[in-house]
Order: sequence, then structure tokens, then C-alpha cells
Amino acid sequence: MKKLAIIGLGLIGGSISAGLKGFEDYTIYGMDLDSDTLEYAREHHMADVVTDSVEEAVADADVVICCLHPQGILDFFRQHGEKLRPGTLLTDVGGVKSAIMEGAKCLPDWVDFIGGHPMAGRERGGIQNSTRRLLWGAHYIITPRPDSRQENIDLLKRIADYLGCRDTVSTSAKKHDDIIAYTSQIMHVMAVAICDDPHMFDCSGFVGGSFRDVTRIAALEPDLWTELFSMNAESLTATIQRLEESLKSYREAIAGADRDVLMKKLQHSSDRKRRMNLEHQRGDDIYALIN
Amino acid sequence: MKKLAIIGLGLIGGSISAGLKGFEDYTIYGMDLDSDTLEYAREHHMADVVTDSVEEAVADADVVICCLHPQGILDFFRQHGEKLRPGTLLTDVGGVKSAIMEGAKCLPDWVDFIGGHPMAGRERGGIQNSTRRLLWGAHYIITPRPDSRQENIDLLKRIADYLGCRDTVSTSAKKHDDIIAYTSQIMHVMAVAICDDPHMFDCSGFVGGSFRDVTRIAALEPDLWTELFSMNAESLTATIQRLEESLKSYREAIAGADRDVLMKKLQHSSDRKRRMNLEHQRGDDIYALIN
Repeated sequence: MKKLAIIGLGLIGGSISAGLKGFEDYTIYGMDLDSDTLEYAREHHMADVVTDSVEEAVADADVVICCLHPQGILDFFRQHGEKLRPGTLLTDVGGVKSAIMEGAKCLPDWVDFIGGHPMAGRERGGIQNSTRRLLWGAHYIITPRPDSRQENIDLLKRIADYLGCRDTVSTSAKKHDDIIAYTSQIMHVMAVAICDDPHMFDCSGFVGGSFRDVTRIAALEPDLWTELFSMNAESLTATIQRLEESLKSYREAIAGADRDVLMKKLQHSSDRKRRMNLEHQRGDDIYALIN
Repeated sequence: MKKLAIIGLGLIGGSISAGLKGFEDYTIYGMDLDSDTLEYAREHHMADVVTDSVEEAVADADVVICCLHPQGILDFFRQHGEKLRPGTLLTDVGGVKSAIMEGAKCLPDWVDFIGGHPMAGRERGGIQNSTRRLLWGAHYIITPRPDSRQENIDLLKRIADYLGCRDTVSTSAKKHDDIIAYTSQIMHVMAVAICDDPHMFDCSGFVGGSFRDVTRIAALEPDLWTELFSMNAESLTATIQRLEESLKSYREAIAGADRDVLMKKLQHSSDRKRRMNLEHQRGDDIYALIN
């Protein structure tokens, strides 16, 4: 049997651990330091072996998936990188990639590190919210290094596939961070910004699907998202500034007397959304029922 | 038998017409001018009587529900108000209320007009997207006039209940428009503003649930939303400006070197969202399965 270790059994680590049971000829080791988490993992059979020892988990491991918060991932590289055996595939699940690829430079040269970001989440973290279905239909983004071995890239793709992901998307750390600032991070910034509005607690009875959908993600974990935002500050602040300008131009069009100006703007933007829907439709249809 | 007329069989009118079949001892008249819509309504038995004649629909009607776009509602008041018989309950479904309550002043004094706004919708309009389930679990907001008859308010509540609404919320037009700018309109402004970003068509493969949820409503009907935004410009532009300021303060916190500042902001906003979730939980649980 080969050995695959999950470091950190929170929402993502727990979901990946449970989801990887039975993967090829791997024994799944789940590692965490928190005693309640360990008890939950054992009770729910979320890994073949559950341990509180990093050393036990990574010793002779063929694959190590580091499922900590971004700062924890960087710390893991420094503190435990030397303990990995030659040829080990090391990957992570962090939502920022430039800072992590940069941090991975401290790893010994016998470790094959490939960045990873499965695009799935829930408002509530922790192992008790994890589910082997969490990644079903999600994009699994990977950021290989120039010297990453093809067999390890292929192995990571099989892992993503076994977890039920829609596809594996290979990209650079820079492009990942630019795009993720737009597709994910700013959605979270908007959601929390909306929740600062003084009307927030007056609006019971006036809420429809759009408000629920937009603000759902505002109940985020502040420590995790402080790291994610701070580690991608340049791309994210540029994206926020573009949104502020776009909102301002809508505000001016709405305040203006000429309804045609507003109508043309709305036509333009909604056409873009409909065009995007068409382009994404094939993939979305397949997963419509499970997402 | 009593008579209830639906004027306009689009997404909302079609859904209400189909949903009201069998309501108490009322015969449901569905009226539209478009021949395809009429054919669809007849084929799908969406009303007891389907007609292209306003006169036929409103003659001796006990209840008239005007399901046109806001400008169409105002035009209906002027062009057809005189045709309603004394004591008729007239209501509408427009998403702005001050402009419509103002417009209703042209109605003859024998018409009992009560404003209405069922908080439900879909990205795609038209009768072919209507469904008798559209209003299930939705808030039905009503804005009675000072002289509205209690028996008609009660009748409108029974209508909302029969349509499967969660509740009927009675409020003033001013409060409705202020709150709706926040809970609904600005969600749509954000969604279209996001779709103007140059990254829009680069992000296939990088999209998760948050992006899909936030931008879903961007595929809106430009003519309808031009009216809704323009007729509520004062509240909406003030709300947009507050959001711009909130985004700016997040941008500055993210750009700043002190992560504690950002952490505290995120803690504050996410706590507000969690508190709101708790307050709304009872109602939301009941409808979790159908929304």
C-alpha cells in the first residue's frame, strides 16, 4: 500500500480525507492536533489512520496534502519540509498561490511541491461541516512548478477526479491570484461590505433570493479571510477599485435624467452575463443538480 | 362566482394566475395582448378564462391584479381606472411603491387600491418561465392607503397565503423603497457592475459558488430594471454610495500593513451576518427545502 497524508482535518481537509478513502492503493492518514477533531474523525471513519503526530503522518508518505490556513501552510513548509522523503508529492489547498509558491522555495529539493486550490467551501468551517461531497463539481486549480514531475501532476489530477471535481485547471500562481481576486475574493468583500449597511437589521420581511445569495458568504471565518485577502492585496485592491468605479458609473446613470443611458448600460452588462452563461452552460448543466 | 382579473401574463402575472386557480369562489381571468402568451396560457390552462380584452377582464371584477412593468401599471391606472366597478380591490406587483402609490391618485375614488410587491423573480421573464410555485416562501409586501378597507387588506392576505407566500408584510411606500434599494436593487447593481469587469471572460475554470450566486441576477431584463432603478433613484443612489464607501474602507484595510485592522473589520461584519442568520433562522428553516 502507498501512503497519503492529510495535514489538518478542518472543513477542507476533512472533506478531502473522507473523499479519498479507497483511492487507488493508498492508505489515508488524517492528522490534526485538536482532540475534538481527532475524536470526530475517528468516530466518523474519515481516514484509514487518524493521528495527532505530524511525524507519523508524513514519514515515508508518497503524497502529503497540506490543508491548513495559508499561514499554517507556510509554517508547515519551514517546520516539516525536511521530514518528507525524496520524491514525495506535496500539495496544498490554499486560496492564494503566489505567496505559497514563494514560501515553497524553502522546501528541500527532493520534495515535488505542486500548488493546489480546490474551489469549494462552506460558510461554516470545521470537520463537523466537512463532507465527502464538498468538492463534487468544483474546479480544482493546480499551479505546478517548472520542474514538477509529470507523473505527480497526473496523480494530482486523479486525486481531483476521485474527489468528484469537475476538472483540473493548470495555471500560474500570478494568473490564479489575479482571477481569484475577481471570481471569489471580491464576492466576499462585497458580502461583508453589504452587511455593514445601517439597514441590515431593518430588512426582515423584505429579503428575497438575491439578498440571500449575495450575503450568504458574509458569515466567513475572519482569521482565514484576513490571510487570504492580505496575501493577495495587490490584485484584490485593484479589483475592488474597478468595482467602485463601475458602481459609481451606475450610480451616475441612475441619478441622471436620461433613462436611455441607464438602459444601454444594463443591456451591455446583462448581455455579457448571458454570453458567459452560454459559454459555461455545458459544464453547468451537468452539475446543476448537485451544486 | 366572484371574478378576479390578472392584467399581464408575464413571469409574475402568469405565476399568480396559475397559482390562484381554485382560490375561494373566484373565477380567474387572465388578460394579455400578446398572441403567443395567450396561446401558451390557454394551452397550459393558466386561468379559467383567457382573454385579450382589458374590458372583458375588468368588467364587474371584484379583484384586479395589475402585473405589468411599473410604467405599464401607471398607464393602466390612467387608461382603465374608470372601467373598474365601485368597491373593486385593485392591486399591483411593481417593485417600486412610492411612484406607484403617487400614480394611483388618478384612480376614481370608488376603487380601493392597495400596493403590492411579491418578492419573487427569476432571471428569465415571460409566461413560459412562470410557475405556480414562484411565490412559495416569498414575502408579499403590501402598501395599503389610509382609506383602504380592512376587508380588502384581509382578502389580499388570503391571496398571498393561497399563493404559498411565507407572510404578508404591511409597510409604507417610503419604507418599502428605502429597504428594497438595499435588499434587492443594489444586489442587481452589484451583479451587473461585476459583469463589466475586464476579467469576465477570462475566468472560466476559476468560478465557484460565490461567483455563480452573486452574478446569477445580472442576466436581468434591461427595460424592467431601468424603470425600477429610475423610479427609486434617490434611495438607490444613496445606498450605492454607502456601499462604495464601505468597499473603499475594506480596500484601505486590505492595502494596510496591519492585519489586525482587517481582522477586526471582518469579525464585525461577519458577526452581523451571523446575528441576522439567527434572527431569520426560524422562517428560513421552514422554507429551506423549497427555495
